[in-house]
Amino acid sequence: MKLATIKNNSRDGQLVVVSRDLTKAVKVPEIAHTMQEALDNWDDISPKLEKVYDQLQNNTLSNTFDFDSKEAMAAIPRAYHWADGSAYVTHVELVRKARNAELPETFWTDPLMYMGASDAFIGANEDIKIEKEEWGIDFESEVAVITDDVPAGVNAENAQKHIKLVAIINDVSLRNLIPNELAKQFGFYQSKPWTTFSPVVVTPDELDDAWSNAKVHLPLISTLNSKVIGSPNAGIDMTFDFGQLIAHAAKSRSLMAGSVIGSGTVANQGSPNGSSCLAEVRCLEIIKDGKPSTPFMSFDDRIEIEMKNKKGETIFGKIDQVVKQYDPIN
Amino acid sequence: MKLATIKNNSRDGQLVVVSRDLTKAVKVPEIAHTMQEALDNWDDISPKLEKVYDQLQNNTLSNTFDFDSKEAMAAIPRAYHWADGSAYVTHVELVRKARNAELPETFWTDPLMYMGASDAFIGANEDIKIEKEEWGIDFESEVAVITDDVPAGVNAENAQKHIKLVAIINDVSLRNLIPNELAKQFGFYQSKPWTTFSPVVVTPDELDDAWSNAKVHLPLISTLNSKVIGSPNAGIDMTFDFGQLIAHAAKSRSLMAGSVIGSGTVANQGSPNGSSCLAEVRCLEIIKDGKPSTPFMSFDDRIEIEMKNKKGETIFGKIDQVVKQYDPIN
Repeated sequence: MKLATIKNNSRDGQLVVVSRDLTKAVKVPEIAHTMQEALDNWDDISPKLEKVYDQLQNNTLSNTFDFDSKEAMAAIPRAYHWADGSAYVTHVELVRKARNAELPETFWTDPLMYMGASDAFIGANEDIKIEKEEWGIDFESEVAVITDDVPAGVNAENAQKHIKLVAIINDVSLRNLIPNELAKQFGFYQSKPWTTFSPVVVTPDELDDAWSNAKVHLPLISTLNSKVIGSPNAGIDMTFDFGQLIAHAAKSRSLMAGSVIGSGTVANQGSPNGSSCLAEVRCLEIIKDGKPSTPFMSFDDRIEIEMKNKKGETIFGKIDQVVKQYDPIN
Repeated sequence: MKLATIKNNSRDGQLVVVSRDLTKAVKVPEIAHTMQEALDNWDDISPKLEKVYDQLQNNTLSNTFDFDSKEAMAAIPRAYHWADGSAYVTHVELVRKARNAELPETFWTDPLMYMGASDAFIGANEDIKIEKEEWGIDFESEVAVITDDVPAGVNAENAQKHIKLVAIINDVSLRNLIPNELAKQFGFYQSKPWTTFSPVVVTPDELDDAWSNAKVHLPLISTLNSKVIGSPNAGIDMTFDFGQLIAHAAKSRSLMAGSVIGSGTVANQGSPNGSSCLAEVRCLEIIKDGKPSTPFMSFDDRIEIEMKNKKGETIFGKIDQVVKQYDPIN
């Protein structure tokens, strides 16, 4: 089934069930008002939502309306936990190579993961508001999953059972703020301002056989100002699957229902089908030419991120947003 | 005024107004059901809560009940943002000195801050559940503030206006998991499992003149197994005040109402009144004796954290909790 959160003048928005082709939607206040409410009681609520989804697919509902991704908020507009892995270690290896740094051997067995700003999730068509271009604005195209309650100490195999929904996301990064933050060793903070969600999130069964081993085996297409930057396959070179990432996150504590776990920038070894962020493009240029030639994003740049099934149909709808300058108000 | 969240079989608990002496409380469902709901509309709701607080203080309410800190959940049992600073740079300097590492000069001007697990806040009397003692269990006694909505790019002076509530907290740390996480440069994750809140949170005016320059000028008392470990003054040697910490957190994005901003381990230069965590005690031993003699916490250890006003009365109630072993269930 496919679900979305649409604007309704509340901070948490309104949960809707969306048709497979993303044309129709229906509100379900009798089942759950918000995505978080659904996730809080997923075992009880998801069968009811699935029933509505079937009716929507079969055109037996009268209270539907046209789904418009411009009305979409993030799936969970404010969430309680957002942990982003860096599961495509080949990408990390490339970034290190560009600055002549060794990749520690443990990076292949111990996931990198940082805590992100779960109160800063934005909708698929919302502007990316940034104060300064010189902060080095970049997109990062990723896959993410949303969990129900995860017990502390869960193993990677059982962690897979807690994956309830799948999304694609844009983890906006401010590259020129990263070196200082990394040097402080306390992780990313100012350098990771906003994370954008796809218009809809889907249950893993919507991915058919593209969902296996807790990975999504499809290309993730990133398009900057109408030029495709990359379409690496998210199922290839993902060193840690989502079960392993969840188990890592839950090693020393439980995770609350509605936790969002990200894959990190999707990347394939050697980048044969391009990249999912400009930082990787620039690293490839540094390795080849000694210096980068592709700039980071400018104000008014447009980034589109999408994933299609084998029939060429959109799965999550399209992230399609523009970078806009933000003036601080004091 | 003083507020608390008490258990009611929901994930978010029930907002209550608590008397200044922490003996009586009253539910306020006609004003707000939860702490988050109050913070979402603080300007409208806080005057109504203040009125109830006055009535509670004047004994003109009939629907009060005895306040019991054992019924307290964290102020916001699941929050959208938890950012912990390390504002007492003298502590960071000491920790570095113990391992013969230089303190970068920028640490005195650019705050250290990490993103914590806002879905893992626990109540003042709840057990600290940890799987393994060898992870190096430690408490960290801190002051924290809770904000309303903070605009991106706010300056430090204006940021102070967004401080709505003050708390004391225990930022539980797993010291032996920290070196590996610091080496990975992605920040703390597994090493910061739970954060405990004081039984009540208070508006800054409850601190009288102990609240000035966005700091709390009172000793924070940490007691481990009935032995006082330290009572440093939280107003001394706080290099960055809460306005500066909020401004740092909001540099590149807005913060959602209900954001929790922590001070980091309270510490005074030279530790004349002891320490707010065992890591600091051990660092002092390393500097003096070449090696630490105080062990980290063991299962069944009891940690109490409290702050009293100049009359010796408790302000926030007492964090009083025990470390318990947790067996993962798969």
